[in-house]
Amino acid sequence: MKIAEHIQRLGTETAFAVSGEAAAFAAQGNHVYPFHLGDVNLSTPMTVQEGAIKAMREGKTGYCPNAGIPQLREVLAADISASHGVNYEMANVSIQPGGKPVIGKFLHAVLNPGDGVLYPNPGFPIYESQIEFQGGVALPYGYQETESGFVIDIAGIERQLTPSTRILILNDLQNPIGAEAGPDEFEKLAELVREHDLYVLVDEAYFDVRYSGKSRSFVSIPGMQERSVILYTFSKKFAMTGWRLGAAIGPEDVIAVITRQNVNLESCPNHFIQYGAIDGLTGDQSEVHQILATLQERRNVAVDALNSIEGITCARPETTFYLFPNVTGAMRNKGLTDYEGFRRAVLKATGVSFCTRLHFGRPLPGETQCYVRFAYSGIDAEQIEEGIGKMKAFLDS
Amino acid sequence: MKIAEHIQRLGTETAFAVSGEAAAFAAQGNHVYPFHLGDVNLSTPMTVQEGAIKAMREGKTGYCPNAGIPQLREVLAADISASHGVNYEMANVSIQPGGKPVIGKFLHAVLNPGDGVLYPNPGFPIYESQIEFQGGVALPYGYQETESGFVIDIAGIERQLTPSTRILILNDLQNPIGAEAGPDEFEKLAELVREHDLYVLVDEAYFDVRYSGKSRSFVSIPGMQERSVILYTFSKKFAMTGWRLGAAIGPEDVIAVITRQNVNLESCPNHFIQYGAIDGLTGDQSEVHQILATLQERRNVAVDALNSIEGITCARPETTFYLFPNVTGAMRNKGLTDYEGFRRAVLKATGVSFCTRLHFGRPLPGETQCYVRFAYSGIDAEQIEEGIGKMKAFLDS
Repeated sequence: MKIAEHIQRLGTETAFAVSGEAAAFAAQGNHVYPFHLGDVNLSTPMTVQEGAIKAMREGKTGYCPNAGIPQLREVLAADISASHGVNYEMANVSIQPGGKPVIGKFLHAVLNPGDGVLYPNPGFPIYESQIEFQGGVALPYGYQETESGFVIDIAGIERQLTPSTRILILNDLQNPIGAEAGPDEFEKLAELVREHDLYVLVDEAYFDVRYSGKSRSFVSIPGMQERSVILYTFSKKFAMTGWRLGAAIGPEDVIAVITRQNVNLESCPNHFIQYGAIDGLTGDQSEVHQILATLQERRNVAVDALNSIEGITCARPETTFYLFPNVTGAMRNKGLTDYEGFRRAVLKATGVSFCTRLHFGRPLPGETQCYVRFAYSGIDAEQIEEGIGKMKAFLDS
Repeated sequence: MKIAEHIQRLGTETAFAVSGEAAAFAAQGNHVYPFHLGDVNLSTPMTVQEGAIKAMREGKTGYCPNAGIPQLREVLAADISASHGVNYEMANVSIQPGGKPVIGKFLHAVLNPGDGVLYPNPGFPIYESQIEFQGGVALPYGYQETESGFVIDIAGIERQLTPSTRILILNDLQNPIGAEAGPDEFEKLAELVREHDLYVLVDEAYFDVRYSGKSRSFVSIPGMQERSVILYTFSKKFAMTGWRLGAAIGPEDVIAVITRQNVNLESCPNHFIQYGAIDGLTGDQSEVHQILATLQERRNVAVDALNSIEGITCARPETTFYLFPNVTGAMRNKGLTDYEGFRRAVLKATGVSFCTRLHFGRPLPGETQCYVRFAYSGIDAEQIEEGIGKMKAFLDS
C-alpha cells in the first residue's frame, strides 16, 4: 500500500535495533550482558498484582471512563500534590496506557504547525519524532559535563529561542544522562519560560526512582504549574513497564483535550489494572523500597566497575537507572573513532551490550566527547560485575 | 493553556453525554434501563482471566515487542486465516490496546491531507472525527431500509466518488444498524474499490458476534486483501471491552507503519493480557458460546418487545448486539418531531435510556425516517422486557 508522505517524519527508537543485534548474538550461543534495555527485570509488587487480580475477578472488565477511574485519578492527584508541594485534583489527571502517550497527546493539544519545541538531546528519541511528525520545529538542547555530573546547557537554549518557540520539553532526572537540575537551573529555566510564554512538558518518568535526597518538580516553581503538563508513569517505580499505565497531569483545559484524544484513540486505559495501581500508591511500600535498594546496589557495582576501566569516567547519579559514562579515552585507546564500531567491538569481544549517544538524538554541533548509556534495570549485580569486568579486560588490553 | 487550532476538528462520542444523563437520572432515585451502552455486562471467560493471571504471576510484566508478543500474532493470524479463507502470517498482525486505535493509526498510515474518505453514517462516530482531525475530507454514505433489514446505499457512494477519494471505511456487521452486506453488495463495493484504486479499513469488531449463519469478510473477495486493513478486537466476542486489546491485520508494509506508531504512542500493548487472549482463542470455546447464547436471548426479547409497540418496527439482525428500530410512527403518535425530545421524554417517563441516530453522525440530506439504537449487551433479558414494556405503556397511551 502507498504510505502517506508524513510518515517519513515519524521516527522510532533506534535502540530496538541494539536489542535485535544482542538477541542475534545470543542466538549464536554467546552470553549477553544486557545494558541496552530500559526495561526492569524485577517483579511488580504483589500489592499491585493482587489488587489488579481482585478487580479482574470482581468484574472490572468493562469500559471505564475515558480519563480513567475516578478513584485512581483522586489518589494520584493527592500523591502528586503531596510529593510536589502543589495542589492537583481529579480534574487535573487523565490516566493513560503508559507514560509515553503523554508526549504525543500533549503536543497534539498545544502544538500548531511551525511552532518551535525545545527538547533535550541526548534525550528520549520519541520527543524528536513526535515534534517533527506533528509539524513542529525540533530545537535540541544539550548538557555539559561537570565534575559531579551534567548540567543543562542553558546558553544553548537561549540561542535557540525565537518568537515562534512555544514549548519546552524538560526531562529532569534524565534518560539517558541521569542528570538532575539544581535549584539555579530550575530558576533560570522558569525565567525563560515566563519571558517567552512557553508551555512545558515535564517528563517525570524517573521522579520516584532515587537513592538519596528528594526529587523536586519543575511545577513547584511559582508560575510553572499552570503552564506545565506532567508525564507520570507507574512503569519504573513499581516495575510495571509491561502493564502500560501512566497519566497526564496538568491544567484542567489541556487535560480535557488529552482525554478527548483518549476517546478517539483507545477509549480508556485497561480497567482492572487501575485498581492495582491504587493499591500500589496507597498500600505498604516495602516492595517499592526493595526495588530501589536493588537498583541502588546495581548502580554502585556498575559505577565502580566502569570507573576502574582506563579511559572511562562515570558519574554516580542519585536518580534513574541509567549511567552515561564518558568513553572518549577508551575509544581512543582502542583506535576506534565511531560509536557503532566501538559498540559492536565491545559486544563481539565481551557480550556487553549497550546503547550509545547516537540512540538518543542527532549529535549537536561541537560535541567532542563520546558517551554511551548503561541501563542497569534489566541486569543483576553479579552479571553487571562480570560483564563490565570482561569489558575492562578487553579495553585495558 | 491555549489549545492548538486543529483540536477544533477533533470529535468525540456524543453517546457519552447520554451515559451522563442516565447516571444523573439514576442518581435522583430513578431506575434506569441502560440500552445506550455498547459495553458488555457479562464476565470475561475464565480461560482468558486465568491465562492472563498466570502470565502476570510468571513475570510477563516487562515490555513486550512493539507489535505484541509473537505467539499471539501467530495465533491470531492463523485464526483469521481460517475464519476468513485467506492467508495471513505474523508479519500481517500488529497487536493494539483495543480495536479503536486501528482507526486513527490506519488513517495516519495512508491518508494524505485532502484525500476523500468514505465512511458509514450512521456509523461509529470516531471515523468522522479522525478523518477530519487528520485533514481528510469526510464523505458519508448511508443505508436503506428494506423488508429484512438494511443495505448500503451504493448509489450514494458512487455519487461521492471523486479523483481525490482514496479510502473506504467499511463496517459490515454494523454499529449502530446491525446491517450485514450480502454477496451482491460486497461484489459491487469491490468493483468500486478496484476501479477507483481505494484502500479499505475493514472494521470487523462484530465479526464473531453472530447467532446464526457465518460471517463473511470483505478481504475474502479477490483483490481486496492487499488493499485492506482489518480492525480486530477481543472486546466483544470475549466480553473484554475494559481489557483494551485488539489488532490491525493487513499488508506487511502498512502494518509495519502501524507498529512504528505503536513505538511512538504506547510502546506496546499490556504484556500479560496477551497470554490470556491466546488462551481465549485456542482454548475451550464453551464460555464464548454461552456469551453468544445470552446475547441471542436478549436480542429475541428486545426485538419482540420493540415490535409490539405501535409505530415501531425493528429488524432482527443475526449479528452485533445492536438494534436500530424505526420509531418514526411512535414519535408522530406522541407529537414529537425531534430526536432529543423523544429520547428525553422516554427516559423521563420510563427510565429507558438509548442513543438516537444523531449520536452516529450528522443526518444525511433526504432522511425522512427516524431511528434510535438499542444496545442489549449491557442489560439482562428480564430488564429488557420490563423496560421496553414500560416504554410500550408510555408510547401506546
